[in-house]
Amino acid sequence: MAKISILMGSKSDLETVNETINVLKEFKVSFEAKVLSAHRTPKEVVKYVEVAPKGGTKVFIAAAGMSAALAGVVASHTTLPVIGIPIETKNLKGLDSLLSTVQMPPGIPVACMAIGKSGAKNAALFALEILGLSDARIRVKLLNYKKQMRLKIKKTKIKV
Amino acid sequence: MAKISILMGSKSDLETVNETINVLKEFKVSFEAKVLSAHRTPKEVVKYVEVAPKGGTKVFIAAAGMSAALAGVVASHTTLPVIGIPIETKNLKGLDSLLSTVQMPPGIPVACMAIGKSGAKNAALFALEILGLSDARIRVKLLNYKKQMRLKIKKTKIKV
Amino acid sequence: MAKISILMGSKSDLETVNETINVLKEFKVSFEAKVLSAHRTPKEVVKYVEVAPKGGTKVFIAAAGMSAALAGVVASHTTLPVIGIPIETKNLKGLDSLLSTVQMPPGIPVACMAIGKSGAKNAALFALEILGLSDARIRVKLLNYKKQMRLKIKKTKIKV
Amino acid sequence: MAKISILMGSKSDLETVNETINVLKEFKVSFEAKVLSAHRTPKEVVKYVEVAPKGGTKVFIAAAGMSAALAGVVASHTTLPVIGIPIETKNLKGLDSLLSTVQMPPGIPVACMAIGKSGAKNAALFALEILGLSDARIRVKLLNYKKQMRLKIKKTKIKV
Amino acid sequence: MAKISILMGSKSDLETVNETINVLKEFKVSFEAKVLSAHRTPKEVVKYVEVAPKGGTKVFIAAAGMSAALAGVVASHTTLPVIGIPIETKNLKGLDSLLSTVQMPPGIPVACMAIGKSGAKNAALFALEILGLSDARIRVKLLNYKKQMRLKIKKTKIKV
Amino acid sequence: MAKISILMGSKSDLETVNETINVLKEFKVSFEAKVLSAHRTPKEVVKYVEVAPKGGTKVFIAAAGMSAALAGVVASHTTLPVIGIPIETKNLKGLDSLLSTVQMPPGIPVACMAIGKSGAKNAALFALEILGLSDARIRVKLLNYKKQMRLKIKKTKIKV
Amino acid sequence: MAKISILMGSKSDLETVNETINVLKEFKVSFEAKVLSAHRTPKEVVKYVEVAPKGGTKVFIAAAGMSAALAGVVASHTTLPVIGIPIETKNLKGLDSLLSTVQMPPGIPVACMAIGKSGAKNAALFALEILGLSDARIRVKLLNYKKQMRLKIKKTKIKV
Amino acid sequence: MAKISILMGSKSDLETVNETINVLKEFKVSFEAKVLSAHRTPKEVVKYVEVAPKGGTKVFIAAAGMSAALAGVVASHTTLPVIGIPIETKNLKGLDSLLSTVQMPPGIPVACMAIGKSGAKNAALFALEILGLSDARIRVKLLNYKKQMRLKIKKTKIKV
Repeated sequence: MAKISILMGSKSDLETVNETINVLKEFKVSFEAKVLSAHRTPKEVVKYVEVAPKGGTKVFIAAAGMSAALAGVVASHTTLPVIGIPIETKNLKGLDSLLSTVQMPPGIPVACMAIGKSGAKNAALFALEILGLSDARIRVKLLNYKKQMRLKIKKTKIKV
Repeated sequence: MAKISILMGSKSDLETVNETINVLKEFKVSFEAKVLSAHRTPKEVVKYVEVAPKGGTKVFIAAAGMSAALAGVVASHTTLPVIGIPIETKNLKGLDSLLSTVQMPPGIPVACMAIGKSGAKNAALFALEILGLSDARIRVKLLNYKKQMRLKIKKTKIKV
Repeated sequence: MAKISILMGSKSDLETVNETINVLKEFKVSFEAKVLSAHRTPKEVVKYVEVAPKGGTKVFIAAAGMSAALAGVVASHTTLPVIGIPIETKNLKGLDSLLSTVQMPPGIPVACMAIGKSGAKNAALFALEILGLSDARIRVKLLNYKKQMRLKIKKTKIKV
Repeated sequence: MAKISILMGSKSDLETVNETINVLKEFKVSFEAKVLSAHRTPKEVVKYVEVAPKGGTKVFIAAAGMSAALAGVVASHTTLPVIGIPIETKNLKGLDSLLSTVQMPPGIPVACMAIGKSGAKNAALFALEILGLSDARIRVKLLNYKKQMRLKIKKTKIKV
Repeated sequence: MAKISILMGSKSDLETVNETINVLKEFKVSFEAKVLSAHRTPKEVVKYVEVAPKGGTKVFIAAAGMSAALAGVVASHTTLPVIGIPIETKNLKGLDSLLSTVQMPPGIPVACMAIGKSGAKNAALFALEILGLSDARIRVKLLNYKKQMRLKIKKTKIKV
Repeated sequence: MAKISILMGSKSDLETVNETINVLKEFKVSFEAKVLSAHRTPKEVVKYVEVAPKGGTKVFIAAAGMSAALAGVVASHTTLPVIGIPIETKNLKGLDSLLSTVQMPPGIPVACMAIGKSGAKNAALFALEILGLSDARIRVKLLNYKKQMRLKIKKTKIKV
Repeated sequence: MAKISILMGSKSDLETVNETINVLKEFKVSFEAKVLSAHRTPKEVVKYVEVAPKGGTKVFIAAAGMSAALAGVVASHTTLPVIGIPIETKNLKGLDSLLSTVQMPPGIPVACMAIGKSGAKNAALFALEILGLSDARIRVKLLNYKKQMRLKIKKTKIKV
Repeated sequence: MAKISILMGSKSDLETVNETINVLKEFKVSFEAKVLSAHRTPKEVVKYVEVAPKGGTKVFIAAAGMSAALAGVVASHTTLPVIGIPIETKNLKGLDSLLSTVQMPPGIPVACMAIGKSGAKNAALFALEILGLSDARIRVKLLNYKKQMRLKIKKTKIKV
């Protein structure tokens, strides 16, 4: 019974997606993470998107690079919220992944996060904000997470 | 008791945001729409974000152009989901709004949609997907909406 | 028995795709053109791609804008050549469509043409070059087409 | 009797083009690879493009960087299919090579692949898809290649 | 009694901001530097901006990266001059920070400097030019600084 | 005795610069506006920059498009604050003007505003913020200006 | 006996190239202008470049859009100076033409001007500067041209 | 008596400009190279540009990065040909230098080369092409240089 289903287009995306996973572990929210490619395993993606909700999935997170079709393909097969993480790329520095993920046509929304690790971390937090709407425990943890973040910054000392 | 709170940075953004509003009306989901600017009415934004949840707000939608700080500022004051719509701009065609909205630092997620009207429409649908997680009536309507969209395309005849 | 199958993501793409169609008509090569969206009718796209070869399709041409996933989705379901036309977009002027179409991951090739009408015309010509490899009549017509193009330029008079 | 002729603008492009070559070797399809520059050896390029078809060439692949004119120049002298690989560049990261390769004027098509090694690999696969139209052995190998790719992803285990 | 208040969005920005600090030290002008984030400590930023002028602040300098809202948020709460430093970013190389900092809507000016260390150094010099309007000592030092810079270049010998 | 000296590179820039002028008139602050080009009247620019301070100039505002050297050239001849307005351009939409204005090398600061009319308006306000440091009347007017702006937004009614 | 040979890739480029032509007429320097395309009439371009010097050509000017190979192709066949004018394009606003024209590989220089009409005018002036090195009449006219330009700006009155 | 005057905005540009210098040495053409900055030593630049022709300068080459005003400033003070080399930059990879150098306003031409070392090498060759118009020895050397370049490519062996 995983609440959050994470797909990534390639095993090499895991380095980025670990930022997502670490937050979910910290929040002790159940999740599942798989490598599935919109382009190389299209049928497996569709099947997974259709089956996952029966296993408890409430939110999808999809990470992909270059012509990053994964989040859009997931979104085309579900009415559950889909969060997209544009993976940094070697040549165009993630601009290709970003535009492919964010510029969705009207009718099929994808919630796009920032390129790379910042986006991966925020994908987890955004999924938690969604789950928090009906889960007071998560809501409290999010408030606390934000508070810790604030306190950490407030305590930052710099030597000038 | 509005479920969805829509903020836009300038009255001129309404032409775009009407795409959001029309979808919410079609779905008969309560919403509230206001002009408030992150830069020109910063305190009003904060106050609104803090008060709105007491009035029932579950999801924020923020539309802004240029250095589009609005969605990020809203997100910095809430742990409810915040959806950002980058408004098209005269000179840089919305690239400035897009990067300002999507490139959020780790810790403060914003769900960025496409630039302009496509994004505005999808902001509504994404908010509905979130509300649909705990509202079967919305879920059914979303499935039907998607079905109608599919049927419309399937019936499209082109003359070649 | 259509040799070339043209898909476009939206009816509004037809204005661009007509450049493709006009060339194919001029060459009297059989083709079929349909509106099917990777995001709004994903299953119909897959079904079409699987069935079309049985009807004689040798080459696919896919035109789409914004997060232009159509050509890539077609390519993920076939080993026939797929040609992509990035449709011009209102905000990012087709840069989003171009990067989504051309930046395919290794393993799933798409032959990307130029943005908009230039690309649409060339998509037809490139498909004809492929068919020409086993069809002497098309080869001769292509040589003649190129010759006419050259003669037209050579005869161009400018008044300075 | 090489079926595929590969040109690259500079010896340094070979590191990228090896991705093309390795796929063709794996498929046991005959090919020829040469360093010829549109700008530094323009006459040799033309001569090669005119002679190669007599030696069996069915498809040209041209790799070049910066103002990447090579694929376009090849295309201007043949009606055989020409596939372009935009080489990554030091300063503009291949954006210059991409736009020079893909933005061909109407009349002279070039099938542009992704920037760098992904594009180089796909150039080989796309050439094979073209040859596969009249060669059942290649068609079968392509289906098998795609299947192996799919199986490899399906078997990918990630540790989270 | 600090004349110049420097805020940076993250401790990692200090490497860049040290260029600012070193110039101010060299000019012996009092300053204060703190880590405060527009997104993670929004209330602390507002409070700081409201209180600092009472401590003598005449000019604010704000350094931030990605969706760099900090300078704009500071500017929205003061009518003192605000100078923005767009921090270099990993993926988009500071283009995101630059557009977020410079593309301010009418009514709330931010004086944007170049991306990274060049901008950080110039932020200090620009603040000094402002203070110099009512401080002859700074004016003289600025003239001398510029003269030294000129002399240093004039004395540069290159070996060719 | 003009407090603010405005230079623009071409008469056609006046349409944009009128946004600057209108604010200064509203604030009743003396200013002077001239067409002088860094490239076409370089000596006149230098002479003007050297003479203007004797006439009372405290702040320079320079507006230019394309390779917008004007603000930088002014800055190279003064230690007074220089504010740059990147003029929108026909082809690159002001991106060329923006990068030319903002990417100043270390040592010669220019305070860059947004592209076009937004930036032109803010140039005036930023100049006023600088003058306000030693002019209580301007300070009060700026506070009032900001308050009116806030009130105007607060009173904005939208019909949804 | 034309001193300057102007090539343009398409008749539609003439609107831009007329800026070049008008300057040359004003200077009464002999020139020849032809439509020849690097991609559609490659052999005619080469022949023209080889023959023109015998007719007196000292400088080539080449105007082209999109994947603007013309200037580079001319340069590859001559050691006379070649000036490139990147033509504005519908989608990418001339960025494609600019990068294709300017990013020449080492060994084959092209002197790139600005995009569109500004560049077209400057192409003529730059060609005249080259011819002026051995033609005192042109040198004097250039000095006078520059002086008139300066005087025109100095006399510009603006109403503020 | 130097025929070619090379200016660079900073000593760090020498690494790039050495590509220019090495070609000029190889051609045994007299040149002079100096570090002078448009922004930090504006008067020295003007003086140099005015004096150099008396010492024999026929062509200026100016290399600068970021807001690269140097070539334009040189061009504004001379009617001799000015060649610009956009220096690669840390953040924007030379895109800022390129646009600042190439997008010159009508009336003041600069011949822009490619970003970085390729452009630096071509700046020398382009200057030689200009000098070659009245110097048969240089013309012959250029033809030979081009021939050697061609032969080198023709002899390139690659191992596949």
